[in-house]
Amino acid sequence: MHLLDEPHHDGSPTYVDDEAPALGSEVTVRLRTSTARPVREVWLRTTYDAEPTYRPCHELRGDPTTVWWEGSLLVRNPVAHYRFLLVHEDDTQQWLTGAGPVDHDPPDTFDYRLPSHRPAPDWGRDAVVYQIFPDRFARSAAADERPTPDWAVPAQWEDEVVFEPQDPHTPLQFFGGDLDGVVEHLDHVAEVGATVVYTTPVLPGESNHRYNASTFGHVDPLLGGDEAYTRLSAAVHARGLRILGDLTTNHTGDTHEWFRRAQADPDAIERSYYFFDEHGGYESWMGHHTLPKVNHTNPALRAAFVEGPDSIVARWLRPPFDLDGWRIDVANMTGRLGDIDVNHEVARGVRRTAQEVRSDALVIGEHNHDASTDVDGDGWHGTMNYSGFSWPVWEWLIAPDSTARSFGRPVPTPRRPGPVVLRALREWMGRLGWRATSASWNILGSHDSARIRTVTGTAEQQQVAAGLQFTLPGVPMIFAGDEIGLEGVIGEDSRRTMPWQRYDDWDHQTMAVYASLAALRRAHPALRRGGLRWAYADDDTLVFLREHPEGSVLVSARRAAGDAVGLPTGPLAGPLGLNAGEVLLTTDEASPLVPGPDGHVVLPAGGPGLTVWRI
Amino acid sequence: MHLLDEPHHDGSPTYVDDEAPALGSEVTVRLRTSTARPVREVWLRTTYDAEPTYRPCHELRGDPTTVWWEGSLLVRNPVAHYRFLLVHEDDTQQWLTGAGPVDHDPPDTFDYRLPSHRPAPDWGRDAVVYQIFPDRFARSAAADERPTPDWAVPAQWEDEVVFEPQDPHTPLQFFGGDLDGVVEHLDHVAEVGATVVYTTPVLPGESNHRYNASTFGHVDPLLGGDEAYTRLSAAVHARGLRILGDLTTNHTGDTHEWFRRAQADPDAIERSYYFFDEHGGYESWMGHHTLPKVNHTNPALRAAFVEGPDSIVARWLRPPFDLDGWRIDVANMTGRLGDIDVNHEVARGVRRTAQEVRSDALVIGEHNHDASTDVDGDGWHGTMNYSGFSWPVWEWLIAPDSTARSFGRPVPTPRRPGPVVLRALREWMGRLGWRATSASWNILGSHDSARIRTVTGTAEQQQVAAGLQFTLPGVPMIFAGDEIGLEGVIGEDSRRTMPWQRYDDWDHQTMAVYASLAALRRAHPALRRGGLRWAYADDDTLVFLREHPEGSVLVSARRAAGDAVGLPTGPLAGPLGLNAGEVLLTTDEASPLVPGPDGHVVLPAGGPGLTVWRI
Repeated sequence: MHLLDEPHHDGSPTYVDDEAPALGSEVTVRLRTSTARPVREVWLRTTYDAEPTYRPCHELRGDPTTVWWEGSLLVRNPVAHYRFLLVHEDDTQQWLTGAGPVDHDPPDTFDYRLPSHRPAPDWGRDAVVYQIFPDRFARSAAADERPTPDWAVPAQWEDEVVFEPQDPHTPLQFFGGDLDGVVEHLDHVAEVGATVVYTTPVLPGESNHRYNASTFGHVDPLLGGDEAYTRLSAAVHARGLRILGDLTTNHTGDTHEWFRRAQADPDAIERSYYFFDEHGGYESWMGHHTLPKVNHTNPALRAAFVEGPDSIVARWLRPPFDLDGWRIDVANMTGRLGDIDVNHEVARGVRRTAQEVRSDALVIGEHNHDASTDVDGDGWHGTMNYSGFSWPVWEWLIAPDSTARSFGRPVPTPRRPGPVVLRALREWMGRLGWRATSASWNILGSHDSARIRTVTGTAEQQQVAAGLQFTLPGVPMIFAGDEIGLEGVIGEDSRRTMPWQRYDDWDHQTMAVYASLAALRRAHPALRRGGLRWAYADDDTLVFLREHPEGSVLVSARRAAGDAVGLPTGPLAGPLGLNAGEVLLTTDEASPLVPGPDGHVVLPAGGPGLTVWRI
Repeated sequence: MHLLDEPHHDGSPTYVDDEAPALGSEVTVRLRTSTARPVREVWLRTTYDAEPTYRPCHELRGDPTTVWWEGSLLVRNPVAHYRFLLVHEDDTQQWLTGAGPVDHDPPDTFDYRLPSHRPAPDWGRDAVVYQIFPDRFARSAAADERPTPDWAVPAQWEDEVVFEPQDPHTPLQFFGGDLDGVVEHLDHVAEVGATVVYTTPVLPGESNHRYNASTFGHVDPLLGGDEAYTRLSAAVHARGLRILGDLTTNHTGDTHEWFRRAQADPDAIERSYYFFDEHGGYESWMGHHTLPKVNHTNPALRAAFVEGPDSIVARWLRPPFDLDGWRIDVANMTGRLGDIDVNHEVARGVRRTAQEVRSDALVIGEHNHDASTDVDGDGWHGTMNYSGFSWPVWEWLIAPDSTARSFGRPVPTPRRPGPVVLRALREWMGRLGWRATSASWNILGSHDSARIRTVTGTAEQQQVAAGLQFTLPGVPMIFAGDEIGLEGVIGEDSRRTMPWQRYDDWDHQTMAVYASLAALRRAHPALRRGGLRWAYADDDTLVFLREHPEGSVLVSARRAAGDAVGLPTGPLAGPLGLNAGEVLLTTDEASPLVPGPDGHVVLPAGGPGLTVWRI
């Protein structure tokens, strides 16, 4: 289906003059409509303390295919909600929402949103994030000197990972990767084009994943301790990169020093950090008693953990560790328990605390379904966007025989045609809003999921997925090893060691694609800050524009071979017109756009593959 | 389009075993799927403190067309959210949500919702509400004895209303209806079949609408004062009916005693009830300085107005006035101002206060766009459902040349085809949830809108609208005069006097339809508590089932003449099977359902009109 005749607006600079307006201010917003369906009037609807109000938009200028309209949006509330009412020449009416145009009067669910809060820091929005699972990334020589702890089942770097969820060895298998190992391979991180190093927890815990920390006070000696972490942070910063930590705010391990004191002494202050009942029982994560849930309604816990300069959240952002921000684990469940819900207060507290230490701190919340009400303004800057990015992309590109599952789903992820996937992408973007989508992480896989190579089954399909990761709005996050074609059928299996010793076996061609995509993203503001306008979709093809005042690009993704597609030249052109059809990147040997009949340009036949053109 | 092969679930007793489960309990839920699209597995997804979790549903029993499934829903949080994942025999997957089935993975927007809070009282859910605008309903002989106040522009009962919004006479034109006038016409209220008398404000205010009260302490003497209101309440209750008041919680008039004290004395406690700035300016409703906004962040205001036994909310629910509950005016804006939002706290406070005085009190909030986040549990029991009922029905039935507008809309309401209207009805029901939809008021017009007769242009189209009002889930609210065909192009014009003196001119046939619909609703639990399953839609036809264990009905609404429609017998049948096609009510001389070819029944050709069959 051709989509270029749809009316369009999004939160990018082409369409919104101020991305973070002050409360009470007026912001100029624009939209474009097509002369193929002539529009007589456009009205901007927003709410005034929850009362809908309408203002006219006025016609700006046009060309034979496009009319531009402009209106003034009053930012009455901290997050302004708005949509457009279009009255066509034939008297029909249509709403333009963040999920696209609709012919009925819908609920406010997909209204555009413009927050007055400060956005995520530039470095976070422009980032390419590289996720490292420390036990599996790299092992320095110093690691050989360290005794294996009692709890661990030692493994050689070449060993296969144990990954059966029920196997007690799964969390105990210990490969001994360490932080100096990471330092030694920062060249690789830079070569991929990443700008942020995000490590899963570095806290001491009797497991290889370290999400069950025994203390928040220092770095696991098995990783090299505080000194090694300090060296890593310094080395990352010396390269002009950033570093993010990983903190679970929902629970601690039952070996955590707070919990031990709480259990040992009912009068200890730490007793109030948890939800103990009168019999000594306590609330825990999903009923797992090794992961006691903390009580964020308790001011002492909040002060110790997430609020104020002495909190855990604050301390790691100062020297010597000097983190640039946090990825918050189990952010969705944090502060929620039965009839308690202080999640937003905690999210706001974490962000405020982090920003008080570093004004450009970044806070990303893990969330595994609909984060839309949690990222709307002054809490998490963004989320790990599994729902709005990972699963739709998986569903389009998954191999028909794959058994990969999106989190929690009790059946394999289904393979779905382009228009269905497009519907999902549009609704999630509409629901999260432009800002949260742009600041959230486009993930193809993580230490918690199957690897993208295993999902797609082939390198060329993985490269299409990677192409979408770098060209759709959002911040690409690469799980270390994806770039060289590592595989994994579930999260635990995906935690394979980086095969530094088998360099020749790497998928260097895929690695080159990642590096090229990262370079392209760096070079083109359109890919970092540009709008998103859909151009065309069929079962095997998705085509979209990223529009930016400094230059726009056209992206075509094909999951299978397909014919040439003609696109009308007029509506394809941005506000600057259509410039050129030069290929900026392709995984498919695609050629430049060429003029077609009757004011069309032709996207060449091809696929599978992804191509980016300058327009 | 035929819809009976869709999978289906809703919040009614056929599908949910406990409509108000205790927090932490398990509730059995059921759904039906069609053998026309065979389903292999069904999974129930809910969230556990915001983490999605899945449980299998098991196949209950089936027949050649239908399979029933059952699952157990854990009510972990005060409002349980859930949806169903269907895996078909052909390996495709589909979600069943409160807005219907979808082929993509959608946000949680339209998830089913099951609140653990107490529902609205039975009398409120089973009600037929009759709205009375006191100045215009009826005038007792005593009214002739009262001097006309200085501010008023006196009018005779036969005069036309002044309704130009800009005309200063519009709010001042005084017809002198009073409360004893209402008492004298309760026979009429009962004849229509109403069970609840809801009067717009009866407080003294220098206007005919009385929304700008000068005190909350007593009833306007021009209406007969406290004694007349006491007589009305007693007379209503003596008939076994209920009475609702109307209270503006967002603002007072600038002549209100609180505001006068606040202005006169900066040290008065009432100063803190409002939002004064240092120069004596103050916040007001949409910038209208005659309507100063109250400050619900202030505990003194909250105690005086909405919370506790001495509050305004509580006092009127006790003798002598003895109200059964409140309709809250401007509920959507209450407690919201710029970056302040304590709306939900106020809603919860109003409900709690009201229920402390009368355990079966009802609280309905006025809301004019998306009330979904305001009615989700322990705040307003329901809303005046303009968005989810009035506007979709208007859009289907509006006369092509009508200039009627839904609130705020700067252009006339468009006329739209059945499938587009169906989309709106389904999304709004999904968004509000089953409980809030069922407890909200199905409104065809009010003192704030055009009259339904003027919207539709004809009696027969109005009768279709009234039919939908009484047969779709929700509580019918009739604006006095609609039942006899009064007209009005905007709200102010709709406030015409009831023409008691011209009884022969009434549209008695339409009145009989209202009375029959009310009787039908009273007689059939399916129309009060039954589920809603869509059967068929085309541009001019909407057909649906209301299913209930005590018997189901089929409703066909046609806005124009149309052909016979065949419906498959199997999926049309409820869990009790298909019983009979007897006509229970028709505005169209429709005939019984008759067996058609190949396991179908035939809805007879006809229309415009509405027909209800027993099945």
